[in-house]
Amino acid sequence: MSKFWSEMVKRCEPYVPGEQLDQQNILKLNTNENPYPPSPIAIEAIKEELDRKLNLYPSPTVDQLRNEAAKYYGLSKENIFAGNGSDEVLAFSFMAFFEPGRKIRFPMISYSFYPVYAKLFNIPYEEIELNRDFSLPAEAFFQSEGGVIFPNPNAPTSVYLELDAIKDIAENNPGQIVIIDEAYIDFASISAISLTKTYDNVLVVQTMSKSRSLAGLRVGFAIGNPDLIEALYRIKDSFNSYTIDRLAIAGATAAMKDIEYFNHTTQKIVQTREWAAAEMKKRGFHVLPSATNFIFACHYSKNAADLYTGLKRENVLVRYFNKSEIDNFLRITIGTDEDMKLFFEKLDSLIRKASTR
Amino acid sequence: MSKFWSEMVKRCEPYVPGEQLDQQNILKLNTNENPYPPSPIAIEAIKEELDRKLNLYPSPTVDQLRNEAAKYYGLSKENIFAGNGSDEVLAFSFMAFFEPGRKIRFPMISYSFYPVYAKLFNIPYEEIELNRDFSLPAEAFFQSEGGVIFPNPNAPTSVYLELDAIKDIAENNPGQIVIIDEAYIDFASISAISLTKTYDNVLVVQTMSKSRSLAGLRVGFAIGNPDLIEALYRIKDSFNSYTIDRLAIAGATAAMKDIEYFNHTTQKIVQTREWAAAEMKKRGFHVLPSATNFIFACHYSKNAADLYTGLKRENVLVRYFNKSEIDNFLRITIGTDEDMKLFFEKLDSLIRKASTR
Repeated sequence: MSKFWSEMVKRCEPYVPGEQLDQQNILKLNTNENPYPPSPIAIEAIKEELDRKLNLYPSPTVDQLRNEAAKYYGLSKENIFAGNGSDEVLAFSFMAFFEPGRKIRFPMISYSFYPVYAKLFNIPYEEIELNRDFSLPAEAFFQSEGGVIFPNPNAPTSVYLELDAIKDIAENNPGQIVIIDEAYIDFASISAISLTKTYDNVLVVQTMSKSRSLAGLRVGFAIGNPDLIEALYRIKDSFNSYTIDRLAIAGATAAMKDIEYFNHTTQKIVQTREWAAAEMKKRGFHVLPSATNFIFACHYSKNAADLYTGLKRENVLVRYFNKSEIDNFLRITIGTDEDMKLFFEKLDSLIRKASTR
Repeated sequence: MSKFWSEMVKRCEPYVPGEQLDQQNILKLNTNENPYPPSPIAIEAIKEELDRKLNLYPSPTVDQLRNEAAKYYGLSKENIFAGNGSDEVLAFSFMAFFEPGRKIRFPMISYSFYPVYAKLFNIPYEEIELNRDFSLPAEAFFQSEGGVIFPNPNAPTSVYLELDAIKDIAENNPGQIVIIDEAYIDFASISAISLTKTYDNVLVVQTMSKSRSLAGLRVGFAIGNPDLIEALYRIKDSFNSYTIDRLAIAGATAAMKDIEYFNHTTQKIVQTREWAAAEMKKRGFHVLPSATNFIFACHYSKNAADLYTGLKRENVLVRYFNKSEIDNFLRITIGTDEDMKLFFEKLDSLIRKASTR
């Protein structure tokens, strides 16, 4: 603490991301990255861009990328905001649509960056308890004072909320923004993007970090009606003219085009997930129904913190949250089939050791 | 305007950057980019990184880049904050060190993003008039209520303020932060970085966009005592976990290492600048003494707005500011010798045409 810190610095409580170890021999199943490389077309596009004008600023409006995303979503450029990862898009959304003095709502068990943004920008909030089965109680989000934000599928629970329930939440917050954070939607069923055409208060946030294997490149989107997108650009242009660099624009644009690769890799991950979830159950885990690229599971008798520590000792990183109600769960990112086989080997040997002790 | 816009969106007045035309045949001297490509070592490092793990998140603390920058500056990692361009670093600095209700000071003719940040974060400000020769009146910055920020060299004037004057400003703001925005310092003489060792209230901001030819990559630094750097990381980690992507980290780190290339290209630009300034004077321009990679000049008889428009018609982009006291100046980025020869050809033909009409 220093006498020069602003009130904002003093009150904020920074988010702690999952560990990023750069060791080679780590099986990294802790930050929900995609185990497959990005589309080869994206890599090629970046290589080409490298030979161009890295000494010049990128486009401040990134039209090229927004047009490509719009084409994919069947919308127009004016419906798309592109930012430096969906975390930045979320931060700008808190600035653009939430207000100090008006209480917003988000799930108690959810993306733990939401309370961090709220504290940073001095926005009061109410945390809504999930149902016993970890599903989202839609009605508890009706008639919010200052707006609503939740991930769908939810994280870290992996549970998907049906579109009808989201529609109900939108209809019952007519004067407030409802932000659907769809970081994992491509591993689930239907996106809420169609709702943005009917409901002017719905904003959908997506990312290229998960289903498009570009966590290293930092690109996320907000999708909604042009009034909302304009608000985000007003904030962005009051904050940082150029948030996405030339290489990221080139790579992300190309990745949006490669629909075949995207379909192939997401389907493969869903397949591996279903198999891995079944394997977990065989080993006595309760596994929540996942619509994401991770599974959230608790063992009927083994302690999750011990499993986390034991796995880490074996160079397997999963995510453990020391938070009431989920402190006996592990969040395990879905890797390749080989990754998951290695994971189960390590897990089995750990469980065996624990049992013979 | 929409009913969903927050007060913050309503009050902000977005910054308008220089035009970014992607036409091939434009001579682009309007956004102070470096005419030379980045260090070949940087390009090589990005190519290598491309073959690594773009599907994984980058380092949230970018230690690799901060260590390299620290080595260059003769400091330690704890003295360095790295962000997504110096605009982001400045935005975080406004959040971390300035306070709504406490008036900050910056020059009236200066980087026009400062009032934009101030409005966004609701920070009151006082604009200090420059001296008649466009130099900075150091004493006018003494005993500020909420802190001080100014570029050195100043932009768009190109004028450098001596270190002793900065020292005086720091000493006469003992309880307030003094931010020196050194975007163009590598084309000038001495940086204020040495002052950060003596004065705990001095923060220096630099960028890789100008002297290191990496505007397309978005990397900037803040340099100061570890308490100040910690404040910036608290804000960053409450806003966006990963602001610099893997390719930018790799490229920027390598560029910081290539001191020879950096020295060679900056010296070349300074040489071209001195020659171009002399050429301007020959043509009846008053040229402010430049310590940057641009010149700020006004003609004794020709109207600057007309020159700007005439040059643009000839596919030469320079920057014109429609703002009192500088509305008869042009800001002209220093390109290669060939760029500047072409510029003078176009300028001469324009002046000839105007004279014969």
